[in-house]
This record gives sequence, structure tokens and C-alpha cells, in this order.
Amino acid sequence: MIGTATKGQRTRDAILTQAVAATVRVGLGGLTLGDLATDTGMSKSGLYAHFGSKEQLQLAVLDTAAEEFAATVVRPALHAPRGEPRIRDLADRWLACGLDRSPGGCVIVKAGTELDDQPGPVRDRLRAMHLELADTITRIVAGGITEGQLRADLDPAQVAFDLYGVMLAFFHTHRLLDDPHAHARARRAVDALLAAARNPTLPTPETTR
Amino acid sequence: MIGTATKGQRTRDAILTQAVAATVRVGLGGLTLGDLATDTGMSKSGLYAHFGSKEQLQLAVLDTAAEEFAATVVRPALHAPRGEPRIRDLADRWLACGLDRSPGGCVIVKAGTELDDQPGPVRDRLRAMHLELADTITRIVAGGITEGQLRADLDPAQVAFDLYGVMLAFFHTHRLLDDPHAHARARRAVDALLAAARNPTLPTPETTR
Repeated sequence: MIGTATKGQRTRDAILTQAVAATVRVGLGGLTLGDLATDTGMSKSGLYAHFGSKEQLQLAVLDTAAEEFAATVVRPALHAPRGEPRIRDLADRWLACGLDRSPGGCVIVKAGTELDDQPGPVRDRLRAMHLELADTITRIVAGGITEGQLRADLDPAQVAFDLYGVMLAFFHTHRLLDDPHAHARARRAVDALLAAARNPTLPTPETTR
Repeated sequence: MIGTATKGQRTRDAILTQAVAATVRVGLGGLTLGDLATDTGMSKSGLYAHFGSKEQLQLAVLDTAAEEFAATVVRPALHAPRGEPRIRDLADRWLACGLDRSPGGCVIVKAGTELDDQPGPVRDRLRAMHLELADTITRIVAGGITEGQLRADLDPAQVAFDLYGVMLAFFHTHRLLDDPHAHARARRAVDALLAAARNPTLPTPETTR
């Protein structure tokens, strides 16, 4: 029984890997069980057995993408030293995930605009994920204030807003405009954000890049 | 003949108004001639007569959205005094278009992530529009340097990148997160961008808000 469950889980994971990759191209709305059957070599009825409905599939795609993003960007960054190094680490990993066209990170970003006007459980799930992400960034920034590295009068939620804007501008400039300067511009924007956030009573830290 | 042409043009415009509104919800990929026939009360064959193909319809939707965005945001801003007032005017109009959920502006923003991984004429058209927009913002910022209001060592293309990031973060925070502070955060981000860009040899301008 355990062996069967494991095989079922492996099949489900393999389908979801294909589904996330397809979603990067065509969006959650463009994802069809028919195309996915072709991509995976499975029957549509076999896919229905795993997900039941297109909505269940879309929710599973979001969960898979969010887990990939958390595993490659957010959780590793939480191991960096608290304060500015942690913010930089998060930003660097996030930019790398955009540069590499990592499917999970791209789906989380792209689904944000796709679903914003489509009320329902899929939008609710994505909104909850983005609120959690904004909350995590806000707490990372607040940690920098506690450490004394960042200005005491800083609004951490504002920095989270600003940082998400840099990431969105990077994805746009890299992925749509095909601009080779996208990464450098994004790093400069992060540098400027951190420079403005830094506690002015501290000496300027050694430049790391 | 002229009367007929005008009627055809009016019908085409009415179809495109519906099509842009539908695109805000479902994206360019989700736009179907079938749904549009239902929305407009026309036959699918009547719609084919106007657009020929889904791709032609998508291109016409982008052109319509871009014209609305240019008419309500970009062209009026070019009448504001050169330099910082023009940047502020552009930003204020852009934020207003997001707050009002103006269909044209939203389509231009949303299509950016939808199409970034879908090579073809529709992506090419959108990319050209966004490059033109980035170029316009860059020239508006460069005008502020020429006027002496902004720092001579400023990189206008970087400011255009940064400003687009603020707008994307605003759309995300307002439209997906439903955050009532989205507008205030975006204005604060624009203020910070302009404060960092300002020529330090000039006296601080009177605060306008």
C-alpha cells in the first residue's frame, strides 16, 4: 500500500512539474487537461483521477510553484545573517530565480496579474500566498531595524512594497523587454533601497560588489 | 459610402471596448470570439468579418488599450511643465488609471506578464509598446536633468526602470492584495525616487502634497 501511494505521489509530482512549466507559458487560465495529457503522455481521465477538476489542478500548480519559490528563495535567505545581509540574500536569490526562468518563481509573479480580476478560490489562494510573502519580507526588514543596521523610523511594509516593485520591474525588463541590463538595473535599485534604509548613525558598510 | 465606413468603424470600436474590458478579466489568451459574440450580441461570423483571426483581434485590443493609456496618462502628462512636475503628473495619472481600474492601462500592464513567454507578433507588438513607454519616461527624466532640477549624474533609464517598478507594485498591491494603503505607498515611493534624483545644489522645493 505504501508503495502504491508513493507511486501515485510520484506520478502526481511529475504531472505538476509539467503543469507548472506549461503555466509559465500560457498562464493558469490557458492550462488545459487535454494539453497536459499530451505533455505527460497520460489520458485525460487519468489526470482527472489525480486532480478532479481544472480548479483543483490550478490550486495544486500554485502550491507546487510556491513551494519551489520558498525552497529556492525564501527559506535559504532566512539562513543569512539577520538585517541587511538577509535582505540582500533574498533579493539576490529572487533575481537569480528570474534570470534562470525558474518556473515556480515565474508562476507566482505571473499569476498575480493574471488572477487579480478573477474572484474565486484560486485567486484567494494566490492572494494569501502573496500576503504571506509580503509579511515575511516586512519581518526581515524589521529585523534589520532591531539589529540597528536600518533606520529606526523606517516603515518595513513600505520597504517590502518597494522591493517587490524592483522584482516586478526586473521580471518585466528581463522577460518581456529582453533587456540585457535588467539584472544590473535591479541590483542598482536594491542598492539604492538599502542605502536609503540604512541607519545614518552607522559607518557605511564595506561594499560587497 | 462614407456613412457605411463610419458605421463599420463604430461597430469595430464598440466590439473593441467590450474586448478590452474582457481582456482585463481573462487576459488576451482567454479572449474568445465566442464569448465576445455573446458580450456584443453579434454573430461569430460578424466578428470574423471585422478581425479575421484571434491574433488580429488581440493586436487590435492591444492597440486600443495603448491608445487609451496614451490618451489618459502619457499625452496629458507631456503638457505639464518639464522636469519634476512632468514626472509627478505622469505618475499621478498612472496611479489614477490603476485606482479607477481603467481597462486600457490595466491591459497594458497585465499583458506584459501574460505574453512574456509567448513568442509571436502579439508579444512583439506589446514589447515595442513597452520599449516606447520606457523611452518616453527616460526622455521625461532627461528633461529634468536638462532643466537642472535633477542630478546631472542621474541615469534616466534607471529612473524609468524604478518608476515602472513602483507602478507594478501598486497594481499588485491594489488589484491582487486589495490593500487600501496601496495608493499611499506608491506615492511615498515616487516621493522617495524624486528625492533621491533631485539636484542637491537646488533648495528643497515646496512640498505639493
